[in-house]
Amino acid sequence: MTTTGADLLVSTALANGIDHCFANPGTTELHLVQALDRADGMRSVLCAFEGVCSGAADAYAKVTGRPALGLFHLGPGYANALANLHNARRHHTPMINVIGDQASWHLGVDAPLTSDIDALSAWTGRLIRTESADGTAAAMAEAVAGALGDPQRISNLVIAADHAWGEATGAPIVIDPPAPVGVDDDAVIEAAAALRRPGAALVLSSGIITEATLRAAGAIRSRTGCAVFTTRAGRLELGRHLPRIDELPYFPQPLRAALAEVEVAVVTGKGEPVTFFGYPDTPSTPLPDGAERVSLGGLDDDLEALLQALAAELDVAVPPGADRDVDPLPPVADGPLDARNLGQAFAAAIPEGAIVIGESITSGAGYRALAPSAAPHTLISITGGAIGGGLPSAVGAAVAAPDRPVLALQADGSALYTIQSLWTMAREGLDVTVVICANRRYQILDIELDAAGISLEAAGPGLTALDDPPVEFAAVAAGFGVPGVSVSTGAELERALARAASEPGPHLIEALL
Amino acid sequence: MTTTGADLLVSTALANGIDHCFANPGTTELHLVQALDRADGMRSVLCAFEGVCSGAADAYAKVTGRPALGLFHLGPGYANALANLHNARRHHTPMINVIGDQASWHLGVDAPLTSDIDALSAWTGRLIRTESADGTAAAMAEAVAGALGDPQRISNLVIAADHAWGEATGAPIVIDPPAPVGVDDDAVIEAAAALRRPGAALVLSSGIITEATLRAAGAIRSRTGCAVFTTRAGRLELGRHLPRIDELPYFPQPLRAALAEVEVAVVTGKGEPVTFFGYPDTPSTPLPDGAERVSLGGLDDDLEALLQALAAELDVAVPPGADRDVDPLPPVADGPLDARNLGQAFAAAIPEGAIVIGESITSGAGYRALAPSAAPHTLISITGGAIGGGLPSAVGAAVAAPDRPVLALQADGSALYTIQSLWTMAREGLDVTVVICANRRYQILDIELDAAGISLEAAGPGLTALDDPPVEFAAVAAGFGVPGVSVSTGAELERALARAASEPGPHLIEALL
Repeated sequence: MTTTGADLLVSTALANGIDHCFANPGTTELHLVQALDRADGMRSVLCAFEGVCSGAADAYAKVTGRPALGLFHLGPGYANALANLHNARRHHTPMINVIGDQASWHLGVDAPLTSDIDALSAWTGRLIRTESADGTAAAMAEAVAGALGDPQRISNLVIAADHAWGEATGAPIVIDPPAPVGVDDDAVIEAAAALRRPGAALVLSSGIITEATLRAAGAIRSRTGCAVFTTRAGRLELGRHLPRIDELPYFPQPLRAALAEVEVAVVTGKGEPVTFFGYPDTPSTPLPDGAERVSLGGLDDDLEALLQALAAELDVAVPPGADRDVDPLPPVADGPLDARNLGQAFAAAIPEGAIVIGESITSGAGYRALAPSAAPHTLISITGGAIGGGLPSAVGAAVAAPDRPVLALQADGSALYTIQSLWTMAREGLDVTVVICANRRYQILDIELDAAGISLEAAGPGLTALDDPPVEFAAVAAGFGVPGVSVSTGAELERALARAASEPGPHLIEALL
Repeated sequence: MTTTGADLLVSTALANGIDHCFANPGTTELHLVQALDRADGMRSVLCAFEGVCSGAADAYAKVTGRPALGLFHLGPGYANALANLHNARRHHTPMINVIGDQASWHLGVDAPLTSDIDALSAWTGRLIRTESADGTAAAMAEAVAGALGDPQRISNLVIAADHAWGEATGAPIVIDPPAPVGVDDDAVIEAAAALRRPGAALVLSSGIITEATLRAAGAIRSRTGCAVFTTRAGRLELGRHLPRIDELPYFPQPLRAALAEVEVAVVTGKGEPVTFFGYPDTPSTPLPDGAERVSLGGLDDDLEALLQALAAELDVAVPPGADRDVDPLPPVADGPLDARNLGQAFAAAIPEGAIVIGESITSGAGYRALAPSAAPHTLISITGGAIGGGLPSAVGAAVAAPDRPVLALQADGSALYTIQSLWTMAREGLDVTVVICANRRYQILDIELDAAGISLEAAGPGLTALDDPPVEFAAVAAGFGVPGVSVSTGAELERALARAASEPGPHLIEALL
């Protein structure tokens, strides 16, 4: 058997512990398809749209901490992956996107599918191009190094078709992982001093927020009386086993209100909170004027180590367990569904160890309020705000953790961006339960329109309504091979969730709000 | 009522004859939504995914010859539009993409959805940014000028949210359309001389190929004995009323065979044919070594005028009508569907004046072979090869020409990229009949794998199979509000096509191959 450049690229990925590929190949990737297929230990997951690949790879990497591969067809295929790569970029998700390009000598004739891949790559991360079939090992090694060490963690590896099919000699190259980031003791001392002051708040911003981090933050709060918040975590532990730490609100007015009493804020990760959008007569940063800002590490620092050092500096012992009285989950109110009883039923249905995917700002509020009383679980969020990341994330999380049930709380409008995800769930038999929050509108836009004092004329369907016709999600799911059901009361939702939990494979529940 | 920058932008578009907008708005586009809603004469079409907007705008512009607006939400929303903009770029489709951006003073805080829109814009065309609310008229005027005159015809107009909501004074600015491109007499004389030689071929490459162009080409062929081909036309007239002019084949071997006897090629538009991809031991350009190339105008020249000048130079009278014996369409063979009887049924179902959308290379061959015997119709093709353009194109064509039935011959794999198009068809009540060629695989990849001598192991579902589970397109369509039916014989397909033609609104027929 001839070893091709594609084989060497794949074996280099495997030698670096990268053994999953979310793929949507085309003609320029034929030999990569062959190489993925014949490499022992590589699992390829076919997606019917590239945005499913990139969103799945993002969640896979968030759950495992290891880079995932994506495989894309030329510039246009990679373009379809970009929106969810924006979300990955915001989280600093380690990712390697392999993009098959025209044969090197075919680029010059400007064939129809040829385009400036470099321009697209610049939007997300590092560009690497193969130089020969033998060079695929070095190219993949550089991609691994970028995924582990670049600021934005995204490597785009463009492989010419002739480098993929050419015979390759040479061995895989293994990259040493970068040394762990140390803790900046001066920053810890400064943060500790700040948190001892009145009006202090600790804001855990973005990144991965672990149980140990939350326990340390809770203990620091108990000792110092500071406020603690999370905001825009990509991966967050939640449940009754942890201190209750609230998330900062999404909309600017409640966000400002939550921070109104802060005099000094210690912020980690991405840094000081900002509003999602700019609004007239509203500051971009919701911390009060004059509040002091103290930075405790960036998004690539080891937040868990920082918080443990902070606890030590404050002489705080971190207790195990919730360290609080946990309110029991309320019974699920029957009657027509709204955000409240939808949240009650969803929170009650979370099994211990589950992964929850949250892409529902307006209808997900009920679940989010009850999450601290739910069974221990992990919440994966859409970190860059680019919608359409939810269903692909459910695919990637379920592939990453086959022993953990995945529950996706998914807005209807954003579900439509990457609805093809359902097919991969069926194809792979993934243990995913999707709850579609079907208010049949872009409700967040209606709220924003109202806040801006804009009332649209009644004539004709507006640009925020999804109800004419309504999308029948249960039918769409069935078409993609996922059993679907539509429910409209709290009791119906409870029963549907119980049934989904009792059966293997994916399920979709359309919750009519 | 205050006039906003958004109002001035929209009124400037209207003043330049641009009165349709394919939209997928978000929070930064609230005031654009308001402006579109309250502008007399502007029709907005909501799409549930940005790739539907851009593909629809491409086809709208191909059919009407006028630019269409697209409305997108920040960088990630625009990113989702890119693949179909690649197709538009390849056709030089006039388009204006309005991209709502963060408020100008909010960009600096690097909010989650902020990104480098300039990098994405560079992939498609001209970047224009508003400088103030008053400046939206000048910005839109520049966008119109770009859509009418830039080489690639795509203008990306980034409007800051505060420029959209700010009060604007000033009047719309109207752009004079560029002067018609004149005919290069020397090129015509050179081309005429070439076509008089033995072994001459005229290749009509890309662009819009009209009835008058085809009639002139047919008459030139009758006079000189030259071969005539079309290739990759974005809009092409077909039917029994025209001379029969064959399309160059897609795959490289038959493509080379079709051109094997050519000694001199006169090529229009995009220029000399090239293979879609590079293959080992296969030249990128299929014209024989040593064949002479003569260029007759570029993609932005007036092909119809050039062909008429060429006919005059060759002293050829261009007759009306087909100028040939037209083979009648064969009866539709009953029995299991294949490309042949699918094509028979499809060709027979085309009403005079219909628009056909073709995104099916392998299964569409049967229709394409019979198209010269079908009723007069227009074929819209996916000009850049980026898949997923078919269903959006059907939306755009139907919006552009509400009196013309639209029939889409659509591969199953590529249908999945932009399947949300079905919802807009239902919402707008568009007269579209979608025939899904359901071979349940990426058949073109299987053909290419076979040609490359690659056989994949049988273990596990491969990366080209779509049959486990099969997508049930009729169920998916029903979920989006489009009546769907699945057929598996020639007679069933005939009946389903007749029924779709007899009922208003969209229909989907899954043709099981």
